Amino acid sequence: MSAPDTRLAPEIAASAWFNTRAPLTLAGLRGRPVFLHAFQLLCPGCVSDALPQVKRIERVFADTDLQVIGIHTVFEHHAAMTPVTLQAFLHEYRVTSPVAVDLAEDGSDIPVTMRRFGLRGTPSSVLIGRNGAILSHAFGIEDDMAIGARIAMALAAPQRATQVPTAHAPAAQTPDEAAGCADGRCEAPVPETRA
Amino acid sequence: MSAPDTRLAPEIAASAWFNTRAPLTLAGLRGRPVFLHAFQLLCPGCVSDALPQVKRIERVFADTDLQVIGIHTVFEHHAAMTPVTLQAFLHEYRVTSPVAVDLAEDGSDIPVTMRRFGLRGTPSSVLIGRNGAILSHAFGIEDDMAIGARIAMALAAPQRATQVPTAHAPAAQTPDEAAGCADGRCEAPVPETRA
Amino acid sequence: MSAPDTRLAPEIAASAWFNTRAPLTLAGLRGRPVFLHAFQLLCPGCVSDALPQVKRIERVFADTDLQVIGIHTVFEHHAAMTPVTLQAFLHEYRVTSPVAVDLAEDGSDIPVTMRRFGLRGTPSSVLIGRNGAILSHAFGIEDDMAIGARIAMALAAPQRATQVPTAHAPAAQTPDEAAGCADGRCEAPVPETRA
Amino acid sequence: MSAPDTRLAPEIAASAWFNTRAPLTLAGLRGRPVFLHAFQLLCPGCVSDALPQVKRIERVFADTDLQVIGIHTVFEHHAAMTPVTLQAFLHEYRVTSPVAVDLAEDGSDIPVTMRRFGLRGTPSSVLIGRNGAILSHAFGIEDDMAIGARIAMALAAPQRATQVPTAHAPAAQTPDEAAGCADGRCEAPVPETRA
Repeated sequence: MSAPDTRLAPEIAASAWFNTRAPLTLAGLRGRPVFLHAFQLLCPGCVSDALPQVKRIERVFADTDLQVIGIHTVFEHHAAMTPVTLQAFLHEYRVTSPVAVDLAEDGSDIPVTMRRFGLRGTPSSVLIGRNGAILSHAFGIEDDMAIGARIAMALAAPQRATQVPTAHAPAAQTPDEAAGCADGRCEAPVPETRA
Repeated sequence: MSAPDTRLAPEIAASAWFNTRAPLTLAGLRGRPVFLHAFQLLCPGCVSDALPQVKRIERVFADTDLQVIGIHTVFEHHAAMTPVTLQAFLHEYRVTSPVAVDLAEDGSDIPVTMRRFGLRGTPSSVLIGRNGAILSHAFGIEDDMAIGARIAMALAAPQRATQVPTAHAPAAQTPDEAAGCADGRCEAPVPETRA
Repeated sequence: MSAPDTRLAPEIAASAWFNTRAPLTLAGLRGRPVFLHAFQLLCPGCVSDALPQVKRIERVFADTDLQVIGIHTVFEHHAAMTPVTLQAFLHEYRVTSPVAVDLAEDGSDIPVTMRRFGLRGTPSSVLIGRNGAILSHAFGIEDDMAIGARIAMALAAPQRATQVPTAHAPAAQTPDEAAGCADGRCEAPVPETRA
Repeated sequence: MSAPDTRLAPEIAASAWFNTRAPLTLAGLRGRPVFLHAFQLLCPGCVSDALPQVKRIERVFADTDLQVIGIHTVFEHHAAMTPVTLQAFLHEYRVTSPVAVDLAEDGSDIPVTMRRFGLRGTPSSVLIGRNGAILSHAFGIEDDMAIGARIAMALAAPQRATQVPTAHAPAAQTPDEAAGCADGRCEAPVPETRA
């Protein structure tokens, strides 16, 4: 994960939710730390590594007020990863925490939340503090011990809302050599510049 | 795997093929051993265990005349595991050997090849000898060492066709307590008796 | 690990040290958190699980003031696990952090430090806070995420010494059904009561 | 493993045996395939990979006449890996098949059997056919599937003794860059030429 920064996390944009009665918003979760993990159901590293890690996070921090949220950020093979397939996937892989379907955007392969957070591909994760600020984000998998330490620090922060910068800009994304899946990560194409 | 038997393997029934220019038939492969593996793209044990093992089989026996064939035997979540999704799955998981889409059958969740072979669920595998006889079949994953030994024995058999029984009946299927995925295997519902 | 307690950790008693120029004492380390791990070189769970985890701890917390200390607590096969064998073991397994040889005690299979801490067997670990208090202890292996969280919390504590109870008693040890190695842990015989 | 050759295996030279009532000889085992595995108790790759694989071999081929034999070929840290330590090691690691202590040779770090077979280090394995010929040998670990295939082929050979060359020379040993343990293998120093 990159060094902590103090940017306020942008909001989630979802076209559908699973495993929750009502849609969730980061604004509504202010005061609690949030572990947001982005995945695609056909991303091998997500299936073999990231989702099992998410379950370990849920188990280790079950007695805390950490909120885990998945976001299905399809940026390739759109016709292959529909909500119907996602629903069956969540069932078969026993994913029981809330999952948002990232909102598609006309004219772009990259969905809205993925673009707002500046995610490079899947699996990615973002740890958000009690005050709504992004504490760290990762493309690929961090090891369990480091992520356990990070989450513990986020939980240890005082629960009252603290001062955060109110303005923010999307993370700059460095152009990547080649999109596609390799080494346990699926990399998105660099999105076109949007006016 | 169960004890060897001498039943002639039934033929594959496919509605589509991937990774091959022309459809394959077991009849056309007579004289070569065939490792047939049945999977579903949303079956966790298939993805985490069976497909990586298939790749190890392909690597260890690359210099032999063993033919590896996958068969996508969808018996649940049919709308979620279409050929479009399968094609993207095969791409993302780097499956390069021939894969057949098992032929759906009106009025049954169980596709034709799966029924003909009497497969209980996924992952399943069937080892077929040079003479077309079923040497062994397994529901779930066998360990690598045992499967390496089995395939070596199949390869060691004389290459000329030998006498095999010409009549065969589908394997009797014992009623299972409960369909669904657990312990790395997805179990099919017991198919209705067909007149 | 058991729930945190506020007992002051007893001192290490060593007959020899490896990987350090001068003997270490917990008193001398007051102000820093200490991760103390007890092992035996012929304990399978120590070799396969605990020592690799210790190396991950060293890597993840390399930039902190956490002190990792190993203690070779031989309580069985004493003639087989001499300092000569330990030295070669530490070399072959690339253990580079300080390791104490627990002081043998006449008339007991259980060495002194092991007895003082009330350790049940190997692998065991004890996390000691900046103030010298035992924060948690474990017999067997905790998962990485939980241990990462614990150590982060210990590091987050204020660095000045805080009030701790000055009196303490060895942890009561519940009689165990059977000494020996199983399930990745080697259990010590319940030590005789010492007058 | 290297390509099969038809050299007759040299005989084992042992100073002690564990897990067998009487010493074993390859001559006395003629007619049965033998899987000979060389290890050192302080060799990390032997402990983590080779010995667990040996147990899988024993399990998969339990109903065959394959004979598994371990040989403790100490070529470094001699004072650290004595028979006393080996005995405790075999107990703790549940090694139950016969193990020979390779015979030390005056003036050499390399013991006799290790030299006769031309082993480069540990872990090493040698597969010997029913006729006493070396079928293959490996330095390091082969994968399970390949080794399962090799052993199956050795078992499939006709049980009567077949013609083998009676003369043989020790395998030529290519000088190695550096002795020591790395990548799961411990490499022996190139032995001095013996007149």
